[in-house]
This record gives sequence, structure tokens and C-alpha cells, in this order.
Amino acid sequence: MLYTEIPTHRPVTPLLDAIDHPQQLRLLERSQLEKVADELRQYILYAAGQSGGHFGANLGVIELTVALHYCFNTPHDRLIWDVGHQAYPHKVLTGRREQLTTIRAKDGLAAFPSREESVFDTFGVGHSSTAISAGLGMALARRYQKDPCEVVSIIGDGAMTAGMAFEAMNDAVAHNADLIVVLNDNDMSISCSTGGFAKHLAAIWGRGQSVNISETGEAFIQPHPEWLYNSRLHSAATDAADNLFKAIGFDYFGPFDGHDVNQLVQVFNALKKRKGPRLIHVYTKKGKGFVPAEADQIKYHAISKINSTAAVNTAPKYSDVFGQWLCDEAAQDDRLLAITPAMCEGSGMVRFAKQFPERFFDVAIAEQHAVTLAAGMACEGLKPVVAIYSTFLQRGYDQLIHDVALQNLDVTFGIDRAGLVGEDGPTHAGAYDYAFMRTVPNMVVMAPKDENECRQMLHTAYQYNGPAAVRYPRGNGVGVEIQQQLTALEIGKAEIVASFNEQQDEHISVLAFGSRVTVAIEAAQALAQAHDVGVRVVNMRFVKPLDEQMIAALASTTSLFVTVEEHAVMAGAGSAVNEYLAQAQIVKPTLNLGLPDIFMHQASHAQMLQQAGLDAKGIEKSIEMAWLKLVQTVSS
Amino acid sequence: MLYTEIPTHRPVTPLLDAIDHPQQLRLLERSQLEKVADELRQYILYAAGQSGGHFGANLGVIELTVALHYCFNTPHDRLIWDVGHQAYPHKVLTGRREQLTTIRAKDGLAAFPSREESVFDTFGVGHSSTAISAGLGMALARRYQKDPCEVVSIIGDGAMTAGMAFEAMNDAVAHNADLIVVLNDNDMSISCSTGGFAKHLAAIWGRGQSVNISETGEAFIQPHPEWLYNSRLHSAATDAADNLFKAIGFDYFGPFDGHDVNQLVQVFNALKKRKGPRLIHVYTKKGKGFVPAEADQIKYHAISKINSTAAVNTAPKYSDVFGQWLCDEAAQDDRLLAITPAMCEGSGMVRFAKQFPERFFDVAIAEQHAVTLAAGMACEGLKPVVAIYSTFLQRGYDQLIHDVALQNLDVTFGIDRAGLVGEDGPTHAGAYDYAFMRTVPNMVVMAPKDENECRQMLHTAYQYNGPAAVRYPRGNGVGVEIQQQLTALEIGKAEIVASFNEQQDEHISVLAFGSRVTVAIEAAQALAQAHDVGVRVVNMRFVKPLDEQMIAALASTTSLFVTVEEHAVMAGAGSAVNEYLAQAQIVKPTLNLGLPDIFMHQASHAQMLQQAGLDAKGIEKSIEMAWLKLVQTVSS
Repeated sequence: MLYTEIPTHRPVTPLLDAIDHPQQLRLLERSQLEKVADELRQYILYAAGQSGGHFGANLGVIELTVALHYCFNTPHDRLIWDVGHQAYPHKVLTGRREQLTTIRAKDGLAAFPSREESVFDTFGVGHSSTAISAGLGMALARRYQKDPCEVVSIIGDGAMTAGMAFEAMNDAVAHNADLIVVLNDNDMSISCSTGGFAKHLAAIWGRGQSVNISETGEAFIQPHPEWLYNSRLHSAATDAADNLFKAIGFDYFGPFDGHDVNQLVQVFNALKKRKGPRLIHVYTKKGKGFVPAEADQIKYHAISKINSTAAVNTAPKYSDVFGQWLCDEAAQDDRLLAITPAMCEGSGMVRFAKQFPERFFDVAIAEQHAVTLAAGMACEGLKPVVAIYSTFLQRGYDQLIHDVALQNLDVTFGIDRAGLVGEDGPTHAGAYDYAFMRTVPNMVVMAPKDENECRQMLHTAYQYNGPAAVRYPRGNGVGVEIQQQLTALEIGKAEIVASFNEQQDEHISVLAFGSRVTVAIEAAQALAQAHDVGVRVVNMRFVKPLDEQMIAALASTTSLFVTVEEHAVMAGAGSAVNEYLAQAQIVKPTLNLGLPDIFMHQASHAQMLQQAGLDAKGIEKSIEMAWLKLVQTVSS
Repeated sequence: MLYTEIPTHRPVTPLLDAIDHPQQLRLLERSQLEKVADELRQYILYAAGQSGGHFGANLGVIELTVALHYCFNTPHDRLIWDVGHQAYPHKVLTGRREQLTTIRAKDGLAAFPSREESVFDTFGVGHSSTAISAGLGMALARRYQKDPCEVVSIIGDGAMTAGMAFEAMNDAVAHNADLIVVLNDNDMSISCSTGGFAKHLAAIWGRGQSVNISETGEAFIQPHPEWLYNSRLHSAATDAADNLFKAIGFDYFGPFDGHDVNQLVQVFNALKKRKGPRLIHVYTKKGKGFVPAEADQIKYHAISKINSTAAVNTAPKYSDVFGQWLCDEAAQDDRLLAITPAMCEGSGMVRFAKQFPERFFDVAIAEQHAVTLAAGMACEGLKPVVAIYSTFLQRGYDQLIHDVALQNLDVTFGIDRAGLVGEDGPTHAGAYDYAFMRTVPNMVVMAPKDENECRQMLHTAYQYNGPAAVRYPRGNGVGVEIQQQLTALEIGKAEIVASFNEQQDEHISVLAFGSRVTVAIEAAQALAQAHDVGVRVVNMRFVKPLDEQMIAALASTTSLFVTVEEHAVMAGAGSAVNEYLAQAQIVKPTLNLGLPDIFMHQASHAQMLQQAGLDAKGIEKSIEMAWLKLVQTVSS
């Protein structure tokens, strides 16, 4: 069935309502599965409308999910969902149907599969391209334990471009592992898939026919369904006789229509009798069954809650500030090239890509390559900018050290989604980047207090002749005016942004980083109103190099140093301040505020900051406590 | 010519002596190139004997290097050597002939290509699998600049298994880049190559014939040379009709005999006229021309100086301590599985691999996959141990966070080569692991003071039900007795290991980590002898969780805290101590000693420690200075 609207009332789904465990699904007749899939699609449409969240990918795997749970004996057999933003149907069929409307909310279902949440979620995930490695680990473990089960890793064509997936396939063949990889090919990551691999898949599709498999496991050929022809190039650059999966040593089966649930059941039942590494290639359509999503797959990658009553923040998103800066800087300097690992939209680069197509490089999901590609460009005198989420830069860490910083190459990193990320939860937290970058020689690391400073810092990083990073939060700015003029900041210079009760001899000096500057000012003001104490707030701007002069100058009139950052307190920016204080033999009480040493569960960004005590109120309370304790100690 | 001994006197090399720039090579007749190659081989044999260093890979690329510099207009054309341990012939032909005997020594030539060292070294390297990304960056940059040149990335079959290489190939096709990749296929990384990719290359070879190319670019077929048949499997699992490189969209040429310099010249001259991404597959033999090295390629991967007069340390290597522990623990617990990313020998796992073949997993050069494979195994209730060098764990950082620590999975990391690594230089320094691991929730991080503690800590990490890492240095232990009995340490407990001038009221408390404990004791003793001050040394053992009780207990009698570690001072273990002191409001002067914020050039490990002020003398001096300053401040 095709749908054109997201239902606002729960649809009637009698078959689905009877499934609280996939065992109940497996008791149905195969002829009922199309109906189950249709009910599941309606329900997902409804629930995603209630909760917001990932959308297109979930609609694309409805039939696949039904067929997998129908054919495999879950949870004894292992399904591993790569990335996991397509696991909503899986959650519905595995006892979490009615909770789906709470997905991504505080105390609700996790955005992705989670081992804590369900025994059916065999591997926690959020970043892409881990499913084959994890599945292989399980398959080899079970073989060693002489207790084999079917292990099925389901991975998208976009995720397959990450090198990690290739490493895992190589190794699966080395061990002749009994592993099924389902390649869910929809020609997309979040953006359109790109590169030789995508062309290769197009070549396979370009043959214009599917392989079908009968009950007996016999293969026969039939033409691709009509809709496929509308969405794919028929002519392809590569020679269709060459098959990458077969070359690497997998048994290859497909391509199959991923929306034909009956056929999928035949295929899985036939192929689970075989052994060794098997790849089943299915083609699906992102947004399948919901007309607007089929028509605009990028827009419908994720959706917001319908009828959301949340207040709208009209300040520009940091991603858009980055995108605007990128266009402006590029217009002034033709040495600028921009690189994204498959995050053109998320990183705010759509306009740049249109305006400067020959300077825009979407390298697919390939963070390692993205960073070293930039290094190579810099070697030729160009000035590459790598746009990357903090959490994904973890994938390019060695390349940042070994290829960029060690050679002191002129690469600018625009690091988005730094700090807490709200609904996506702990897999996507950008909580470690200060620590892993500041320990690397030659790096300059900045964090802006607002959207205008973000723009100017990006310019500063770009002008700086060496590796420099600006890390900014997810979401919107604080609402300041953005200056069109690009003005480089002095490297390593902080600024005092507020001072309360200046007449006092003794001061609390709050050294605030990035997103915490504005709230630190609020906290300082409240504190100064409540107590007879001088409170100063410094916008530190640079995590590396630190403004040591500023800290030294403040020291003589400081009774308590406070550091505040939206980053793990361990090894973070405050820790850099501690190091300087120790080195300068400035012996002062110091309070480091930052994220606690736990993986925080998802909630809204604001809720998570509050939990971490990093909203204005929390910061005020923490400082107050430390200060009172100090006053007590001194007076006792 | 075949050689059976490493010459101890400089061979006579008249043709080679006349080449101070490849332009001079290019003036020779093609018929002279075999002689050049022979002289180069003799000279490399001699020079490597003088300096020690990488060996087999260099002998394998002699003809390839001569042909490349003969055919390409270096340095205008770009040669990018992957890994770079095969760049000795390249260094000889590019003006560094007579310096080659200084390679890897302090102030000598770098072990690997280095942009600082020569304009011919287009990209600094040391870790594998970066050459295609870097070369692609250069090729795209030059195309954009409308100043194209030939870009040639030379990469081994071992390095090709790393996902990063695949990411780069995928992207090269996306951009239809004018890039030549020379696949130097010798069937080896440091160990034998493994996995589906190796089988695929074997399948290509298995056809039993080479493609040759004439002057005109015409291709013709001839049988493989005899020696090839002796070193390769002829039957291969994969279907030879499938070609992975063609599938991904590269033009594929080969395989060619990589020791036929005349033919290589024909091939390169023919193929450089073409455009787009081209892969030239050559087969070479590691150790070629030196009989003992051809016979034992793993042993001759690198050699020591001949006639070395260096004192022999008879204490066991940490790698061997790890290997012995692994066997002992495995004998007691059949849940133990061990994983190495292509470092079986380097990590001391040869005996384990023989004794427990079904529990040994060499996953090829694939650090990302290695870590997530372990996570998958742990999900099934097994207890995987990942053996990895500190510097290479940087490649698996996201997997450590996202796949292991976030799910609190029971994976043990044996982290070798932590700290400075001597001759391999800055690319291989393990200087950042405390910082990047301690910031991650759930991690336990240990560092042993000696080889016995290393063994016991590995046992402790293994017994601990969660992610735990032991990081130990390159080289030999300190010579203590190793207890066979495995005894788990209490998690997070430090020990006081020395105390001098105990009768004093005020003490310097030296909190030492890992390899710096022993020298800290020496330093403390010297200090206590020179001054009337109490000095205590604590073997901290745990970087995370820190023994906070111990620090708190020492505080009241401590006038100066000192932290010492073989790790970047930034964000390191000392920084963790600072954080605790701040949190506990223990306001004391603190001195953090560790590696400076620079990439240190290669020298011997001892020389580098001295330069960093981390030998006993240096530690003593630093503490003395801080203490005297303190005494002065107090008395003034």
C-alpha cells in the first residue's frame, strides 16, 4: 500500500498487535506476511510522527525485517543492524511495539539498537559499518564454542564504503566464517552514495534483472521491477562481469527485490542451509510506501515530531554558520577545498556544493580517508577544510596525528556536534575531542561562545598556517548578530566577558570554554548577587594554545579558579588549565566542571546538560558549593 | 645477482656513485638499469648492515624504484611510498646515498620518508595504507590547480587490506582521478598476508601467466617466472574472472614481474600516457637477491646492525612477557581468544599461534576491525585479548569507544610499544594513549613498573569484567624475577615503593607511572641524598581508576607532588592526578613530568628519554628545581 500522509491516530493493526515476540510472527502463514508488513509500515509512519526520528531507512526495511525474523530463530540467531537507524521495525517485532512512540526521548527507547534494552539487540550501534566485524566476532565465537547459530549482519550500501566493512569481509573469508551479510542497497547513505563502490553496485543492477531463488534453493532470473528503472542509472562504468564480493571470496546472491517479502523468505530459507561467508544483495527504496519520502529521500532521512509544541529557536544553526562561512571564505580564497565524509546536508554544505562543485569533495563514509585526503591536498599548497562531526573524527584520529599534525599541514577542521547531542544518545556524543586533540603537538583547538565567534574562529583556523580545529555544538546559536566581515582572532588569546562585584579583593575566576560561556555568565551573575564575592568570566576561546598570560594575570586576585566546558571533565580543557597552573606553580583551589565519566543516556540536549550540572543553575550551584567550602576552610 | 652475505665493506658502485639526483639516472641507457639495480642492491645490503633497520621490503623494491625514477619526472611527478619502510633505495637515488648508513640513528636519516628531509619525500609516513589517500589528495589538488603531474602511490598487498586503502580507491573512482597505484604484491605484510584479499591476489597469480606490455603499449601474455611458482599457491578459492580492482572501477594492468626492470620501464612509460585511476599489479619478493632473506622473509623483515657493540639486555622483552602470559592464561581459561592486526611476531604471539591455532586471529592490517571483532566475541561470552601497538590503537579509537567501552564489553587490550619507541621515530610514538583512553568511561588503564608487574597486570585486566588495557614499553624489562603464579592486583590500588628521609615532616611525593617508576626511585634517592627532604615514590599502577585514597592519604605530609610518566604531559596521567587534587580541594604545588608537546625526532630510546628529561638524572633535576623554587618562595 502507498501512503501519502503521516497518520496522527494509531492505525488499526490486528496482526501486528498479536506479535510480542517474533516467535508469534513465525507461527503465521507466509501468505500473511504482506499484511504484517503493511500494518508495520502504517504503524511506523504513525509512531515516527509521534516521536520524530529516523524515517526513510526504516520504511525501506519493513519487508526485510519481517522476512528476517520470520526465517531466523531470533534471538538465538543473531541479527546485527548496521548503524541502527533502520531498527524501528525490528524493535516493533521484538516486544517494543507500544514503546516506539517514546523513541529518542528521555527514558524512552534508544534511537539505535542497544544491548541494555533488549536481548534481540545483539550489538549496540550508532556509527556505521561495524556490523560485519561484530557479526564475524559472534560467528567465530560460536564456532569456537561448538554452539553455532545463524549470524546475519545487515548493512547498507553507504556503510559498505567505510574501510572497516572491507576489513571485516577480508577477514570473514580468511576464517571461512559462517556469516550472512545482507547488503541493503538503496543507493544512499544520508546523501547519495558516491564512489567506485556505488558505481559497481549500479553495474550489477544495470544488468536489468534479478536472481530469484525458489523453495528448493534453485536460482532463476527475472527482470527488475519497474520502480527500480526509475531510480537507477542503467549504464555503468564498470564491467558487470567483475563482482567485488565474489572477488573478495564471498558467495554472492542477488540482487533481489527487498520489498518482496515472500521472495525474501524463500531466499533466506534457501541460503541459511549453506555455510561460509555469504552476501545477499537486496535493493530497497528509502521511504518505501510513503510517497513524499520516496520522492525526496534526503529530506525524509529523519523527520521531526508532527504537531511539535517545542519553542522554535530562530538563531541560525551552527552547521549553517559553518556553511555560510565556507562559501564566504571560498569566494575570497580559491585555495579552499572542502571535504565531507557523506555528511553534506548535516554539515551545512549544500549551498557550497552547488556553488563550488569543483571544490566540494564528498568522499563517502570514509573518515580515515577524508583526513588524509586533506593532508595530500595541503601538500600541494591548497587549504582543505574537513567538515566532520566530533564523534566521527574518532574514526580519523590516527590520520589527524600521523598524516596532518606530524607534518604540520595546513588543514582546517570544522568539528560539528561537539559536546552532548541530545536524542541520538551516547553513540554520537562529541565528548572527547578536546582530550584527543590537545595532546597532539602542532594542533590549534578552538571553541566559540556563539555563532558569530564560530564564524570568526573558522576564519582564524583557516588563516592559521597549520592544523587547526574549531569545535561547535549541535543545534542553534545563542542569537547574536553575525558580522559579515571576517576577522582573525589572535591565536591563544582569551577575553574577559563579564565581571561582577569588581570592588571585591578576592574573585572567583570562571574560565569558560565554547558553549558554556553564555551560561557561565548567567551563573556568575546569580552568584555575585547571592554572595559578596567578585566573579569574573573569561571566554577562553582556545583550548590549545591556552592563554597562559591571562590565567597568570588573574591569579593574584583569584581565590578560586573554575573551569567549565561541554566535554568530559577528564583530560579536557579544564585539565589543560590545571596543567598550566601546576607548571606555573600557581597554587590555587580549582574546580573543574564538565561532563561526568559516564556514557549519558539520550534525552533532549537541554535535559542532558541539566543532568550533567552544566546549565546555568547547575554551574552556579557547583561553584557556590566549592566556594562555601573554601570560605569555611579558610575561616576555620 | 644473488648474494649470500651482508658485505662489511662498501661495495664498488660506479654507476650508483654518479647519481646524486634521479635526473642523472634518467640520462642512462635503459640497458644500464639492470646494472644500476645490482649496484643498488649491493649498496643497500652493505648500508643496512651498518645501520640496522628494515631490510626485506627494501631489497624487494630495488628494480621498482629504479624504474619509477627512470620513468617519472621526480620530484615534479609525485611518488608516495606507503608505510615507507621500503624507501631506502628511493633515498639512495634521491641524493641521500652516503647518509644511508646513518638511517634511524639520532641526527641521521629518518626511518621513513619525511617531508622535512627531502623534496622527493612527498608524504611523511610510517603507518601503512595512507598512500592512496595522500596521492589522491595530490592528484585532485593538481587537477584543480590546472597544473597536473603524474602521481604514483606505491602500496603493498599487506597494506591494501586496511580499510583506508579501500576508502581511497572508492573515492579515486568517484573523481576519475589521474592516479597510478602500484600494488607491490609480495604476499606479505610483516607476517604473511591473510584474508580474502590475499586469496584474490593469489587467484590472479594462479592463472599462471603475466601480462606484458610492449613499447607501443600493446599487451601480451607470458608465463610467470619460475620462482613465482615456488612461493605461491596455484589453486585459489576465488573465481579468477572476478577482479576486485576492476570491480571498484580502476583500470587494472598486470600482474608483472617486479624484478624485470626493463619490462617495468615499458609498462610505466606505456601507462603514464593514460588517464584515470590505474592500478599496476607487480609481484616482487621480499628479500630479493639475498638468499637468506628470500628463504626467511619474516625474520629478515628488519635486521640489527652487524658487529653491533651495544650492550645486550638479557631481561625479557615486554612483548615476550605478553606472549608468555597469553599462553599461560589461555591454558587456564578456554574462553581466551587472541587477536592481532598483522603483528604476530612483533607482539610476541608466535608461540601462542602455534599452541592455540584455533584461538589465534590475525586479522591483517585492520585495527578498526580488530577491535570490533573482539567486541563481537565478547558479546558471546568469550574473553578476547587484543594485542596492539599504542600507535596503531589510534586507528581503532572509535571502535574502542563506540563498540567496546560504551557497551562495557569484556575486552583486554595488551598495548605494546607505549611511550617513546626510539629509532622508528615520531610516527610510531605511543605518546597519547593515556589521554585518549582515560577520557573514555568504563575503561581501566594500567601501566607496569617492570616485566613481572606487566604479567600480573595482564592477568588483572583479563580477570576484570570489562574493558581494560595494560600499556607497556618497547624493549626489555628491568630484570626482575617473573612470578609464574598469576595474581590479580586490586583495581585502582597504588603502592609506595620507596621512601627516603622518612623522618622529615615534609615530603616530596613522586607519583610515578609505568616505565618511569624505577628511574623515579633512582631520582628520589639522589635527591634525598643531596637535600634534607623526605622523598616518597609511589608506583601508581592505575591511570584509571586513580588511587585517590593513596593521594589523599599522602597529602597532609606532602609539600610537593610530582607526577612522572612516559606519555605526553598534556592530558596524561599527571593530568589525571591534577584533576583529582582539584576535585578534592587538595591545594598543593604539583610538578607534572612527561613528554614535551613536540614530535620528537628519532634517536635511541635512551637518548630520547634523556632529551625529554625523563631519565633518572633529568627527573632528579626537574624535581630539584621545583623544590628549590618552592623553598625559596616559602622562605621569602
